Amino acid sequence: MLEAILVVFSSVGLIYASDPDILTDFTILVWQFSNLTGSYFTFKGFRDVGTNNLTGPVKVTKAVAAEFPALNGLGVSMAMLQFPVGGVNPPHTHPRASELLYLVDGSLLVGMVDTTAKLFTQNLTKGDLFVFPKGLLHYQLNADATYKALVVSAFRSANAGTMSVPSTLFTTGIPDDVLAKSFKTNTQAIELLKSGLKST
Amino acid sequence: MLEAILVVFSSVGLIYASDPDILTDFTILVWQFSNLTGSYFTFKGFRDVGTNNLTGPVKVTKAVAAEFPALNGLGVSMAMLQFPVGGVNPPHTHPRASELLYLVDGSLLVGMVDTTAKLFTQNLTKGDLFVFPKGLLHYQLNADATYKALVVSAFRSANAGTMSVPSTLFTTGIPDDVLAKSFKTNTQAIELLKSGLKST
Amino acid sequence: MLEAILVVFSSVGLIYASDPDILTDFTILVWQFSNLTGSYFTFKGFRDVGTNNLTGPVKVTKAVAAEFPALNGLGVSMAMLQFPVGGVNPPHTHPRASELLYLVDGSLLVGMVDTTAKLFTQNLTKGDLFVFPKGLLHYQLNADATYKALVVSAFRSANAGTMSVPSTLFTTGIPDDVLAKSFKTNTQAIELLKSGLKST
Amino acid sequence: MLEAILVVFSSVGLIYASDPDILTDFTILVWQFSNLTGSYFTFKGFRDVGTNNLTGPVKVTKAVAAEFPALNGLGVSMAMLQFPVGGVNPPHTHPRASELLYLVDGSLLVGMVDTTAKLFTQNLTKGDLFVFPKGLLHYQLNADATYKALVVSAFRSANAGTMSVPSTLFTTGIPDDVLAKSFKTNTQAIELLKSGLKST
Amino acid sequence: MLEAILVVFSSVGLIYASDPDILTDFTILVWQFSNLTGSYFTFKGFRDVGTNNLTGPVKVTKAVAAEFPALNGLGVSMAMLQFPVGGVNPPHTHPRASELLYLVDGSLLVGMVDTTAKLFTQNLTKGDLFVFPKGLLHYQLNADATYKALVVSAFRSANAGTMSVPSTLFTTGIPDDVLAKSFKTNTQAIELLKSGLKST
Amino acid sequence: MLEAILVVFSSVGLIYASDPDILTDFTILVWQFSNLTGSYFTFKGFRDVGTNNLTGPVKVTKAVAAEFPALNGLGVSMAMLQFPVGGVNPPHTHPRASELLYLVDGSLLVGMVDTTAKLFTQNLTKGDLFVFPKGLLHYQLNADATYKALVVSAFRSANAGTMSVPSTLFTTGIPDDVLAKSFKTNTQAIELLKSGLKST
Repeated sequence: MLEAILVVFSSVGLIYASDPDILTDFTILVWQFSNLTGSYFTFKGFRDVGTNNLTGPVKVTKAVAAEFPALNGLGVSMAMLQFPVGGVNPPHTHPRASELLYLVDGSLLVGMVDTTAKLFTQNLTKGDLFVFPKGLLHYQLNADATYKALVVSAFRSANAGTMSVPSTLFTTGIPDDVLAKSFKTNTQAIELLKSGLKST
Repeated sequence: MLEAILVVFSSVGLIYASDPDILTDFTILVWQFSNLTGSYFTFKGFRDVGTNNLTGPVKVTKAVAAEFPALNGLGVSMAMLQFPVGGVNPPHTHPRASELLYLVDGSLLVGMVDTTAKLFTQNLTKGDLFVFPKGLLHYQLNADATYKALVVSAFRSANAGTMSVPSTLFTTGIPDDVLAKSFKTNTQAIELLKSGLKST
Repeated sequence: MLEAILVVFSSVGLIYASDPDILTDFTILVWQFSNLTGSYFTFKGFRDVGTNNLTGPVKVTKAVAAEFPALNGLGVSMAMLQFPVGGVNPPHTHPRASELLYLVDGSLLVGMVDTTAKLFTQNLTKGDLFVFPKGLLHYQLNADATYKALVVSAFRSANAGTMSVPSTLFTTGIPDDVLAKSFKTNTQAIELLKSGLKST
Repeated sequence: MLEAILVVFSSVGLIYASDPDILTDFTILVWQFSNLTGSYFTFKGFRDVGTNNLTGPVKVTKAVAAEFPALNGLGVSMAMLQFPVGGVNPPHTHPRASELLYLVDGSLLVGMVDTTAKLFTQNLTKGDLFVFPKGLLHYQLNADATYKALVVSAFRSANAGTMSVPSTLFTTGIPDDVLAKSFKTNTQAIELLKSGLKST
Repeated sequence: MLEAILVVFSSVGLIYASDPDILTDFTILVWQFSNLTGSYFTFKGFRDVGTNNLTGPVKVTKAVAAEFPALNGLGVSMAMLQFPVGGVNPPHTHPRASELLYLVDGSLLVGMVDTTAKLFTQNLTKGDLFVFPKGLLHYQLNADATYKALVVSAFRSANAGTMSVPSTLFTTGIPDDVLAKSFKTNTQAIELLKSGLKST
Repeated sequence: MLEAILVVFSSVGLIYASDPDILTDFTILVWQFSNLTGSYFTFKGFRDVGTNNLTGPVKVTKAVAAEFPALNGLGVSMAMLQFPVGGVNPPHTHPRASELLYLVDGSLLVGMVDTTAKLFTQNLTKGDLFVFPKGLLHYQLNADATYKALVVSAFRSANAGTMSVPSTLFTTGIPDDVLAKSFKTNTQAIELLKSGLKST
């Protein structure tokens, strides 16, 4: 019985925990209290992330509160992005955090649009940082013809969230007439766009 | 000389002021200090907003910090939306605030997508509220064939910001090849979408 | 057994949930997780609020976290106030939020006192906004001799709280000698004031 | 010229500075930058506060950001309260902070009302603490017939603000008819209350 | 069964509760809900703290959330420090809050180092305040040859935390070679320092 | 004249800007307003950071608000650390932010002590993450006999601050008697420690 309660507990903790300052050094799941070690603060999921064996589309590996519970209450998380030649990370936003991108390897074309509809772009060289303010639309493209690219991004939240615009718009069931009116086109054009994304 | 300094001041105030708790009852612009009255806390820009004389597309009237400086530091603002028959407020996000919508008049179909790509929709009747969490994509449609609709929305920020997805994607200069790869289509299809939005 | 646990859970959630940024898109009660729909984000309790059938004193209808759980974690709420001819909303404070008032219908005399003991008043016309900073004492009066008034107020908290001064002072059991000394009067005068409020 | 600019600057700093976490170890006024010493972090205004020479009403001495600028950005302040025999600190609220009271000397009857209109009272003995949550109405009375009382209170803000209810209600110009309706009495009774407070 | 659940509950509350603004007047432990009185907001653990019977080293008595649960969510706490003649409170930091020190009795030499490695010191006289910004290293010494000293400190958190540098460095098991390299000395010197602290 | 004013402005911005949510997409220095480009959001100071040419002690390169102004208001920053064979980053704290460390190359022994004086250690392999909660003492050691190590750390603040314990204790002028009493040793031992650190 106790086990079951604790399991439910932990999910409640995840649901209600907030990013602002906590009242303790860190947060823990109840059943870990007695034998906490350094491994609780360690995340090993990035070990195999690199450019060597990359094929297919852009690959995102996350180290956020769901996979790395020690981040709960500490307000920071990371993700690694592997870009094949020509790979694009489609326009998206993070509703809960700014992102500070570090280009580990390769080159990258990044873009971001602010709420006055002004586009900012930059060609990043290996070692460069770029910051995407919270909630603003942004994208990345590996425009290099030969080399892959590798990114480590930090977020100012243990769970920044991601809304990818193409899939959010065209694969979630928003009615065609809403989309057609929004894009000032007809429903056939909308269906065409949907078909491309659905076939993935 | 003093005038100029104070003018620059106020803009700095707007740039750096933050939404969290302030150290004073409210914030003021420096030159208003001596003769502050109740009118500083009053906004009259909604007086003529209604459904009577509405023609053309959806019209948004804002009462945010730029127009209503008393809101600086108080963390709340409003907007009114007038919907003609069939009018749609295209998919958009507010990067800095949740929105609580009150339907003053008419009916409204609202939709919202969370970061797990789940769509939530609701048909609102006059008098209903709907809440859009911070940063999530949402839209509204007046699907009624006869009646206009009128909305008052409150935001938990003095300046929530708005990113309209269609115009942010297709009128800001994001390169066609980024968009084509993102939507898994070709650049001709992208140009077609752009032409519709540009013709407005 | 499981049912009981979840019920206790939800109240704990309400007790400890805080207004700052959350780690999720929104918060939910545990048992709603599996079949969440748009109705969770909808509040219908304002449908019958208007000026038509209003009799008696000022009537306040709230849409806060207790009635509308989706607001938990989103930091915003609303209330509607119906004012009969001559109706007054007595001096009160909201301990946890600023209030942005929108006058839907009628006219209204509003007043607010800041912590330097300066009174600000304003005669509002239909469509006007007025903002009451967090924690400051304020009141509203429908001074019109003929027309009722209707208000929608937004608060920057899912549960702003209200402390009405007359009832807090005179109906909660604060000893007469404390009140008499505070108001520099005698206990008979205090009893007189109490009797008026108690007879309600 | 430079002097004048800096003076105006510092007041802007005070107006816009907020209580949340700052980006520096502490905040300073611009002209103090070059020769900052330990005295900037020291406040000497409490040295003569005690129970020895106290006559007349309750006396409050504040150490908040206005007198002690180092507190700006650090989110904490203090006040000392000297209570003569029978002295009362009338019902009041602090809009921006909870208060933690430490009774240095004497005894004290404290009371507080929450937003459900429930009164909490306590007889404090020398050395006791009592906490008043942010924004809740509270008062203190030295009910002892012989001994004076001395308090040090800490606030979770560099400028908590105080709204004393009797003076805010009856000496700021709130119209008599608003007060009479609010207290369900007549304007003569209101004038009687006002006359007592005005004669101070 | 219910008892056990509630006990676990309360610890979860303590773990996840955060210092920012809460959604209620105050927080409570679930089983106290029905019969809450003023004693919940009262702390009596400071009654016997003074300079009279003090012998031995500096003594710290805390009134934080663990001992005084009403502080949870209110973001403030206190501690009393009793200093014998020549007593020193070793260099330490509080990771979660600024500290505002009030010298109740005696004299005190205080010191603090900011993150630019600048030392600020001050000789405090009875009645003086000194503020230590969040996270900065500080210490106190009663340099008087005759009189004891007594302090009440307020913290801007219900649980500020303390890291005493000597014991954190030399009694927790940090390897000697790490310490020797860090202090640019050899492991014998480190062992010497450890032996002094261990013998306490 | 205008130039001078703006220069002073920008420093005020840095002094008072706070990490919580801002009211704008991002913050800018006044004179950059008119011709802002993507380079404002880009930092190139990490390009030459690597393990190739590293000699001498551990080298820290920061990308915080002082060098990278776009971070102001976005609440995130980074630093790179280059470790030679046997290199140690001495025990230190960051007063204003948690740190999330990513080991780009090599291996690393990390340690951290919480406020209950419990030590957590971990041997990190290339690709591992480790999180250090805000304000807790921590250190890193490259214990490998052959390979250098390279770290990218993210901080949840645009200016986390660093307090290195050895230099803060022994090179800032804290009196020898305070240190001797704190470490329960004599002043000769303190002088010995100081001499090692001063000779650097």
